[in-house]
Parts: sequence; structure tokens; C-alpha cells
Amino acid sequence: MRILISLVSSSTSTGLHLLSVSRRLHTKISPFSTLIGLKPPPAMATSEDSLRRSLAEKQSSIESQGNTVRALKAANAEKATVDEAIEKLNALKLDKSVMEKQLQAAVNGNGPDGSINKEAFRQAVVNTLERRLFYIPSFKIYRGVAGLYDYGPPGCAVKSNVLSFWRQHFVLEENMLEVDCPCVTPEAVLKASGHVDKFTDLMVKDEKTGTCYRADHLLKDFCNEKIQKDLSISAEKAAELKHVLAMLDDLSAEELGAKIKEYGITAPDTKNPLSDPYPFNLMFQTSIGPSGLSPGYMRPETAQGIFVNFKDLYYYNGNKLPFAAAQIGQAFRNEISPRQGLLRVREFTLAEIEHFVDPEYKSHPKYSEVADLEFLMFPREQQISAQSAKKIQLGEAVSKGIVNNETLGYFIGRVYLFLTRLGIDKDRLRFRQHLAKEMAHYAADCWDAEIESSYGWIECVGIADRSAYDLHAHTEKSGVPLVAHEKFSEPKEVEKLVIAPVKKELGLAFKGNQKKVVEALEAMNEKEALDMKASLETKGVVEFYVCTLGENVTIKKNMVSISKEKKKEHQRTFTPSVIEPSFGIGRIIYCLYEHSFYMRPSKAGDEQLNVFRFPPLVAPIKCTVFPLVQNQQYENVAKIISKSLTAAGISHKIDITGTSIGKRYARTDELGVPFAITVDSISSVTIRERDSKDQIRVDVEEAAPVMKSVTDGHRTWADVWGSFPHHSSGSAED
Amino acid sequence: MRILISLVSSSTSTGLHLLSVSRRLHTKISPFSTLIGLKPPPAMATSEDSLRRSLAEKQSSIESQGNTVRALKAANAEKATVDEAIEKLNALKLDKSVMEKQLQAAVNGNGPDGSINKEAFRQAVVNTLERRLFYIPSFKIYRGVAGLYDYGPPGCAVKSNVLSFWRQHFVLEENMLEVDCPCVTPEAVLKASGHVDKFTDLMVKDEKTGTCYRADHLLKDFCNEKIQKDLSISAEKAAELKHVLAMLDDLSAEELGAKIKEYGITAPDTKNPLSDPYPFNLMFQTSIGPSGLSPGYMRPETAQGIFVNFKDLYYYNGNKLPFAAAQIGQAFRNEISPRQGLLRVREFTLAEIEHFVDPEYKSHPKYSEVADLEFLMFPREQQISAQSAKKIQLGEAVSKGIVNNETLGYFIGRVYLFLTRLGIDKDRLRFRQHLAKEMAHYAADCWDAEIESSYGWIECVGIADRSAYDLHAHTEKSGVPLVAHEKFSEPKEVEKLVIAPVKKELGLAFKGNQKKVVEALEAMNEKEALDMKASLETKGVVEFYVCTLGENVTIKKNMVSISKEKKKEHQRTFTPSVIEPSFGIGRIIYCLYEHSFYMRPSKAGDEQLNVFRFPPLVAPIKCTVFPLVQNQQYENVAKIISKSLTAAGISHKIDITGTSIGKRYARTDELGVPFAITVDSISSVTIRERDSKDQIRVDVEEAAPVMKSVTDGHRTWADVWGSFPHHSSGSAED
Repeated sequence: MRILISLVSSSTSTGLHLLSVSRRLHTKISPFSTLIGLKPPPAMATSEDSLRRSLAEKQSSIESQGNTVRALKAANAEKATVDEAIEKLNALKLDKSVMEKQLQAAVNGNGPDGSINKEAFRQAVVNTLERRLFYIPSFKIYRGVAGLYDYGPPGCAVKSNVLSFWRQHFVLEENMLEVDCPCVTPEAVLKASGHVDKFTDLMVKDEKTGTCYRADHLLKDFCNEKIQKDLSISAEKAAELKHVLAMLDDLSAEELGAKIKEYGITAPDTKNPLSDPYPFNLMFQTSIGPSGLSPGYMRPETAQGIFVNFKDLYYYNGNKLPFAAAQIGQAFRNEISPRQGLLRVREFTLAEIEHFVDPEYKSHPKYSEVADLEFLMFPREQQISAQSAKKIQLGEAVSKGIVNNETLGYFIGRVYLFLTRLGIDKDRLRFRQHLAKEMAHYAADCWDAEIESSYGWIECVGIADRSAYDLHAHTEKSGVPLVAHEKFSEPKEVEKLVIAPVKKELGLAFKGNQKKVVEALEAMNEKEALDMKASLETKGVVEFYVCTLGENVTIKKNMVSISKEKKKEHQRTFTPSVIEPSFGIGRIIYCLYEHSFYMRPSKAGDEQLNVFRFPPLVAPIKCTVFPLVQNQQYENVAKIISKSLTAAGISHKIDITGTSIGKRYARTDELGVPFAITVDSISSVTIRERDSKDQIRVDVEEAAPVMKSVTDGHRTWADVWGSFPHHSSGSAED
Repeated sequence: MRILISLVSSSTSTGLHLLSVSRRLHTKISPFSTLIGLKPPPAMATSEDSLRRSLAEKQSSIESQGNTVRALKAANAEKATVDEAIEKLNALKLDKSVMEKQLQAAVNGNGPDGSINKEAFRQAVVNTLERRLFYIPSFKIYRGVAGLYDYGPPGCAVKSNVLSFWRQHFVLEENMLEVDCPCVTPEAVLKASGHVDKFTDLMVKDEKTGTCYRADHLLKDFCNEKIQKDLSISAEKAAELKHVLAMLDDLSAEELGAKIKEYGITAPDTKNPLSDPYPFNLMFQTSIGPSGLSPGYMRPETAQGIFVNFKDLYYYNGNKLPFAAAQIGQAFRNEISPRQGLLRVREFTLAEIEHFVDPEYKSHPKYSEVADLEFLMFPREQQISAQSAKKIQLGEAVSKGIVNNETLGYFIGRVYLFLTRLGIDKDRLRFRQHLAKEMAHYAADCWDAEIESSYGWIECVGIADRSAYDLHAHTEKSGVPLVAHEKFSEPKEVEKLVIAPVKKELGLAFKGNQKKVVEALEAMNEKEALDMKASLETKGVVEFYVCTLGENVTIKKNMVSISKEKKKEHQRTFTPSVIEPSFGIGRIIYCLYEHSFYMRPSKAGDEQLNVFRFPPLVAPIKCTVFPLVQNQQYENVAKIISKSLTAAGISHKIDITGTSIGKRYARTDELGVPFAITVDSISSVTIRERDSKDQIRVDVEEAAPVMKSVTDGHRTWADVWGSFPHHSSGSAED
């Protein structure tokens, strides 16, 4: 029996996964760059717009008043009259300068000095991260490679904690089937997925030096620069530039090239002319084996490894749906010119879930556990009508059909819980629904978890109902049916379309082309087949386009039989839908850094101290052990405590240097260490909490158990604070 | 001040890391293939040797007796005489056939049928592993790629458990600095490390089809085949072939090519002639960025990412030695023709530690914690004198100087504890010291943890004292000094060699070559300089070879001043030594599978059931929850227990199918699940231990805490067995 697969025409989106942001050829999936910073919220746009108009008016008033002054002077008018005119001119100039400041603030996006504060804030975070080795530009001693970063010791610990929690929260709690596939991937797999043909960005080259640039970046930079720095452009010009920015992801190579020419954009470093834009495939290519004949790529996502294993995983799950498979691993994208620091890199860790479900039963047994959650959602409607994200109860969003189905809703809720438990600020987390035109045609619904950072709203998790697309694509290319079965409790009568080409007649009529005609007839969908049947019954012949021949052929009634037949079936065979939550781990961690960072004055008030308010769950080290002063007895106590912390599996650090206790606190606050145990006697010690700086006093042997309970979440600090004597820090923080 | 670096000449070993086994161009590091299966233990060799000689004698006796029989028949001898001669001939033939069997058994390596049992055992393990998705050949639906494997759900869980324990046992307990660097690596880094030039295997091509083979593999296969299958070859021929096998890693391309020609070896698939052997670089090459001008490679090991970060990590550690950095990550080797299943793959997970230490202080503060351990060691001396590995106390090995230093000894001990706690059989684990000629010239000492599997002894962890080689190499190529300092408590007077070329005189004498002469003078080591000083003082002139000029020049007394000066120094600057334990995680896991696998008859005795005796630490799932029969009440109890197991962080599986309890036990025994909770009442349940099949009875609310204590190692099963009522299984296992 032939399988009717809805073929995906090559002109549609490839349906690539998370983090394919700003990919011009599949903007339908990830429109992130059209929404961050580029299209300011409407209220602001209006104010900016009217400011530009007022500024233009003010400028013409100044010019006309200038003329007046000159005319009065030329006419030797009375001094008082001239002075009055000059005063009026100066007032106008003052107005203009105020207006310019307002405009500057408006275009910077966030009220007066908003963007400057953002930049400064980011710089403070990034400086701390680099100085404390949360990350390191890779291969620094060889001058580094753009878009490659190492996680240094605290960053590595944070990452490892985030991944452990991910595994606990998703894989273990949901009994997912975790797999671990290689990064090196043969071409056939990525040809089927669409990456070989379509995973591209448009690139231009400096025609003299050959330096490469992303075409859309150059146009974007030009427009942003104009809008933000050139206050003299008209409101109309500003609107045009903004329109270009909004359309950036939808421009074809030709349109992009035309705009670059129109605006006279040249190579940023040399001012040389640029080539026309052309597509550059973003996969790192390599060759598998020694022959040089087996092209391979470093995978651009981990999902394909799961799809190609569907058959085995379905069997492993006892041939039952639904089930989810999950994978954590490296993915690679050879960015043309990586920017935005840790947010756009050439190698990164993805954590992806593929939840396979019967397309006819998308309910979820644990849905009720998340239905009451309420958080910021940004449905399609709100985006189109220029409103902003608002708090919605998840259950309501599902029941009203804003979120397509329960399973998708369930994962949105679980992602919300995951991110907020990590320490992401719930007020700077929103779930944004893809606009209809952003989504691939086959997708049922798609939501991005976006986190607000100094770079704007960043897509960190994509949660998509991708329907049967991926399994279909691999079924077709590999010839291995990736399908599921539903056994009926009793046989069902079903009506089936049967297309039976009469090969003998077709052979007589089309000779060597017979095979192509037969295939084309068999490939008709139900509507096409029924239309043909009707035509053949009424007219006896029908013109039929055979795309593999590139021409119409005449089909006669005796050449094909089309009928609907009733059959008893014992089971239903179908391609499962896949619901895919896909996590950009590095992006989540970077946003977490920004959300966790704050500065507070030192006790002496003479400097600002950096703090990361990581929850114990993600903190790189859970606690420190400090002998208050250098002293063998205190050191021995510290070592005893350290041993019991190790036995309890709590990562910690001893610092026996004679550095002042305040400095030692400050150093570890900057690493986000939540608790410090200070040894100031041989029988009891103090425990200090990082953010409140509150201290309690506990017996030496209680230190590790207390640490264990507050770091594994069995007790809160408030709890502990209520159960132990408080310790007044005195001059300790100095 | 110039730094005297002992330059590594390009003809010496590159000092590449673990798993560079059988690399012909750096056999000095990893001679593994010369020692496994190829050189049978001497006792066996002798027996094989004498058997071959006896067999040859027997054969000539048979021939001579045959001649006797024919002569008797020709002479029409008496029937009784002929019969007697024939009987004697038959007896000789019988003797020969017995001898052939003995010889076959001897060459198979392990007594009668040894190798056949090994093969069958391996097949049973591998079948179970594949059927239960411990691993899956990658991209199977596209016919796969040799040397690439996926970890399926249980395999992935085992891997994740092994890595967690590695992190706990090494990184946390030793306060190591863990980093996480990219796989994509620019050429400069791997040029400095020696991989670009020397990370190669010798390859031959089928001259007609172009198919590639590893040259040494073909020669090895030919020799093994001859030795094992051709019982007619002489003892001398067998000895020659064995010598070739033993020398395999030391053969040059020319020697290898000559042997292939001499033995008439052709392409295995086509019997076509083969090309001469030539080196093939095993790194996957790619290109970084869009220009095509920045070559990059997928890292062949993770260590280089640590070395290039030495400066930052040293600073992070408060500019103090010793400290260790660690990294877990993917590594890639584009094997010519991967064989040996999961043991030789193209992408694998490495876990590497680089412990940086002052070369003058290689003691270790925690050494005493491991000094009493006793296990199989295979020092150089024992290998050379053809003895076998023997149990040695680690402390004794260090104090006798068999192990070079305490720190190296400490890590050997820690590796022993790590592997045995995972479940590696201590009687099939040995630490083999590298022979002097195996090691790179700069290495101080090197030991491999080898695990015995059906493939022989497999190198799974390499523990090497690599001296200062790696930091030197990167210092030299990057120009960034990767050094450490020791501040003296009070200034020390040191005698320093000062070589001061007199540039003016040298310029007059050598004109344009002056610079090269100056550099050569400054590059002299202490002995060369003192010799020159002596010659100049006695003769006034000296002939001096300048390698950059390729000729001798005449140096006169006025051209250079060489002196020893006393200086006060406040600190010592030096390049740290690095001690590197490097773990092939996939190999360890495969050996663990073999060591954990066994078969036992089913209760009915009609079939063999497979079991993996994983300790709870590595078991993919810690326990199962089975309602004894399908029944809503039991299911509810099962769900309550499941919830408390999840809360306790214990991975488990519920199976509510009506399958017989015996079958459910068998299914999960095959996954290595250590415990099963069976719900057979609403107030209490049974807990069954996998290997003993013993069962205890506990209250419902005790189930999770008991599981927690036995899976996290706080209690043993024996412990629990003593504290709870026993349950007689009755017919449960049927």
C-alpha cells in the first residue's frame, strides 16, 4: 500500500530548530532579530516619531528666526528689538537641544540614558565574568577565534549544575529516553533534514580584501546607526529605515543587494565596495574516513540524532505513544561574523526534547499540574495589535485555543518552572508565540521562551509542535518507515482511496515514459485523484501534468482505475507528531548571569562590590569554609567541616589565607557562593548567607547537615534563620 | 633573560595523549597493540613452539611410515606385517590430530576453546547491549557510519553515571579546576602540540578501486591468520611472523611496504595490488569562518584546551602550585578503518586531568591515603624479563622507585579506586608501565590502566608524567610564557650562565649573517658554552656550527663573553611539570559491560537469562516498581512509591503490564537494574536484589528511604538484609 506523504516543496521553510535565529532563509521559524530593539514598542515609536517632527519644526523655526535676526540687524533695527529676537532664537535653540536629548533617549529605547545604563550594566557583568573565569575567550594565547569561548571553573560548574537540573527536571521526572549521538554526521542525514540545502546566511565580500560580512548585519548596522546617531533625518526617513529593519529577515538576496547599493554601504573596515550577497552554508564541513568521498558535517542541532532512531526508541518504549526522547550535546554553526558575545557562538550546548505523540490525542496526563501557572505570555494577537506581553493563566490559554494543545501547554509550563527555578526573573521572562507567517507551514504552533537581557529579549528555548515533518522527511529519504501503530480493540471498516494505473495501456501510450506517468498517478493526493476520476467519468480523457516529464500527458479512462474501497482494518498506521522543546543552554546561562548580578557598596562605602545571587541549585560552589584568623586549631576545624561537606557531596572551598574576612566574603560573593562557614571557635561556627549577609551560629558537627538541607532545597534560609541563634557580624565585613 | 628551553627535535615522538594506541608514528607512547594478543605469554609461546616442532616431527614420521607401508605392500609382505605397519601409521595420524588440536588451542591463546569462548561471550554481551539499546550504530537507517555509535537510553544513563562519579571522585574531592573548551580548534594550537604534523597512521590504497586500509592492520591480519590457521608452518616461520607482529609499531613506511610486498598481501576485498604505505592525518579537518582561509580541526584530545589556559588557571588558583585542571568532552579521530566495535571509534568522550606541579616537589599531601593499596602492577622489568603482572603495594612501588614519584603514585591509586568502584574486576585490571623506548624522551614515567576484555588487555586510562613538554611547546609557539614562580622567603644567591655576544665584532666578521650567529651563540646550553669558554681561553679561537647557516664559523675571543655570574634572586621562574591521567570513557564503559555480564538459567531451567551486575552507582535505573498483578489498588501504591522515589532523586521505572513477575524481573536484570519493588499488598511491599534474588519485606513508606540508602551507598544490601523480614519468593520468579 502506498503511503500518502504531504511533500514539502523546496520553496517552503526547512523547519530548522532553535537558535536558527536571524537566518534569512528560514525567518518563518525564528524572527527574533525583527523583534528585539529593532521595532520599538508602539508607544515609544509614536513619541520618537512626534519628537522627530517637532525637532524638524523647531529647526525650521530656528532657521526662520535666524533670518529674522539677520534681517533686523541688516535693517539696523533698535537694539531692544534685535535683543528680543536673539533671545527668542536662543530660547528656540535651547528647546531644540532639550528635544534632541529626548529624541536621543527615545531612540536609545528605554527612557533617558536607558541604553547607556544597559551598556554599562552589561560591561560590569561581563568584566566580572571574565575576571573570575566564568568564561574565557578560547585559545586566547593564540589571539583567539571569534565565537568560541571556554567555560572556566565557575562557569563550568554552573553549566554542569544547569544540565544536572535539566536532566532531573525533564529526563528523570518525565521518564524520557535520553540518547547521546555523535556530532559528526554524514551528509545524507542533513540532506534529508534540509540543512545541506538551506541552512545558510547571506554573505557579502569586500571586493578587494575578500573579508566576509553578513549582508543583513551591514544593512542593520547602517539603519540603526542612522536612526540612533543622526537626529537630523526626517520622520519619514526614520520610518523607512525602521521598515527596512522590520523586513530584514524577509529580504531576498536581490533585495538585500539592492538596498546595500541604494544606501551606498561599503566594507566597514576598508570602505571598499562589496560583492552581491550570496548564501553561505553555516555548517562546519568535514570528510568522514580517509577516502575524501564521504562528506560529513558537525551537527547544527542534536534533534536529527533522535529522529533517525525513532524506530528503535518506539520499540524500546514497548511500541507505545506518547514518549519523549532527549539529548544534551554540542552543536556547531560556522557563523559568518559572530557578535553579541556569549549569545551568538560557533559551538554551543543544546538540550533538546522530542516528544512523540499521536496527532489525534494531544492531551497530557500531567497537564493539570501546570494548568494553574500564570506568567507573561505574548500571543500572536497581542503582537499584531501592538500590545505587549501580559500575564495569562496557562490553563486559560490552552482552553481558549491560544496554545494549540495540552501537550504543548504542558511543556510551556514545565519550561517556565525550569527557568524560574534556575533563577531567571519571572518578570523578564515571556513566552512569545510565533506569528503565522513565522512558522513553517507544517507546524501546528510554536512558542519561544524569551528572556530579557541587556541585548533585548533573547530566544532561549523554542517549544514547537512540528507535526510529522521530521519523521516524514527521514522516512522518505531513508526508505525506512518511521511510523507508529494503534491497534483497534475490534477491526474497523475504513474507506480507502485506491489508485491502480493500468500499466499495459500506459506502456502502449507512453513507452519509455510509462514509469514516470505511473509514479505521478500514484502520487496524486485524494482531491486530485477524485477530480481525475470525475473528469474521466464525464469526459473520458483528462490532461495530466507529469512534473518529472515537465509536460502534460493525456490520460484516458482505460489507463487508470480510481476507486474508494471499504476495508476492514485491525490497526491504524500513522506518523507521530513531534513536540520539541529545544534549549540553548549557553544563552540561558548568560541571561542567568545578568539576572543574578547586582552591586552593593562595601561596608566602608568606598567601593562597589559585585554579587551574583545564584540560588544554591546553580551556584558554582555551595559554600566556603574560612578560619576567621590564621590559627592551627581553626584550620583543623575547617578541615573537619570540609571532610563532612565532601562526604555530603557539597562542593566547597577552604580559604586559609590571612586575608580579612570581609575581603574573603567579597571574593566569593562575586562567584555567587551562597553560604560561608566561618570558624571562629573550636566548638561552633557561623554560617553567613550571601544576599542578606545574615549570620547564624551552629555547632561544628551541625555545619554540614545544615548546609546539605539548605543547598538541596529541603530547607530555606528563612527556615534555618528561625531555628538557630543569630550572630552579629560586628566588624567582620570590614 | 633568555629562557633555556630544551627543544624537541621533530624526529622524536610527539607525545600525544591517551588512546593514540597503535599510532605508528608515536609508538613510543602507546604500544598497546604490540602487547595484546600478539605476543602470547612466554609459557604458552614455548608450548606452542614445542608443539609446532613435535607436529613437524610427527608429520615426517607419518611420511616415513607411509613410505614403509607402501614399500611393504610393493614387496608383497605378509598381511600381518602390513597391517601392523598400517596400524602404526594410523596411530601416528591420531597422535598428529590430537597435537593439531593442542596447537590450535595454544595459538588461540587461552587453553582449549579459549578464543571460541571469548568470541561467544563477546557476542552474547554485544547482542544484549544492542537489543536493549545500550548502544546503537549511528545513523542506522542510512546504513550507518563505521566507528560512530549512539548511546541509547540505558547506555546514556550508564555514561552519565560514570561521568558524575568521575566528577565527584576527581574534580570535587580534589578541588580541581574544571573547564569546558570547544571541540573546534584552530590550526596554530594543534601545530604547536605536534598533531598537525604527526598525528597520522600509515595507509595503503587498493590500486584499482581506491579503497583505503590501515597498512599495519593488513600485515597484522596476515600474520595472525597464518599463525592461527596454518598449522603446517614451521616453528621458525611462526617465530618470524610473531617477530613482525611484535615490531609492527616500529616499522617505517618503507619497511611496512617491503613486508607487504614480501608476503604478497593484496586488498582484502578485491585481491588487487596495494599502493605503498603513506601517512594519513587522523584529525577531522574543517574551516573556521566563511573565508576558507582559517583551517581548523575537531580536537583529537581535550588536553590542549587546558594547556593554552594555563596562565589564567594559575592566576585563578592564586598563583600557587600544585593544582589540577580537568575537562570532560568529545574528541575526534578520523580512523582509517575502525574495527573492534566500541573500542575504536571516530568520536568519543575523554575525561582528562592535567595536574601541574613544581618539578622539584613531586610529593603529594594525600599520598598516604592510597599508599597501602595493593593491586596488579606490571613494571618495565617484569615485561622485559617476560614475567607477568603481579600484586604490588603502591607505597612499595613508589618507595622502590618503580613508580617515579608520589604524585604519579597518588593518581595511580585514585584511578584504581575509581575503576574498581565502578565495578571493574580488580583481577582483570593492571597498571602497566611504559617501556623506556615507548615513552617520549621528555616523559619521566608513564603507566596505563589496562582492563582485560574479550579483545585482550585494553588501555583505558593513561597516567603520564609529561614533564614540561606541553607548556614549553605552547610557550614557544604562542610567545606567551606559561611559567610559574616560586617566591623565596629571602633572596638567594644563584650562579647564572651569561652569554654576551659582542655584536659589533660579530657584525664586522659576519655581516649579514651576524644575527644568525648571535642567535646560535645565545642558544648554547650550559655545557656547550663552558666548552667554548675553555677553548677560547686556551686557543683564542673556536670552530662553531651554526645550524641556521648550515656551516661552521670561526669565533674569536673578542666576539663573545661567557661567564658565570652570581646574582641575588627573589624568585625562581620555571615551567611546571604536568602529570596527566587521561580516561577513555567509552572504553571503560565497554569493559565494564563485559565485567558485569553473566548468564544464569531461568527457574524452569529452559533458557539462559542475561544479567548485568552493575553496582547501584552505575546502574542505568536504580529500581523498578511492579504491582504483582493488575489491580487498581496496587497501581495506586506503586504510584505513591514512584513519587517518593522521584522526590529522593532515584531513577526508576514502573511496569504495570500484566506480564508475569518473573518475566519482568528478567527484563530488568538484563538492564542491570539492582532492585525491584514489588507491590503485593497495600501496606507492605517486597524488595528484591538482582544478583542474589533475595527479597525483603518493608512497609510502603519505608520503600523509598531503603532504596535511597542502598543506592547512594550508605547501606549495603547485606545490611538491609539483616534488618528486615525476609520474603520467600514462592513462585514469583516463574
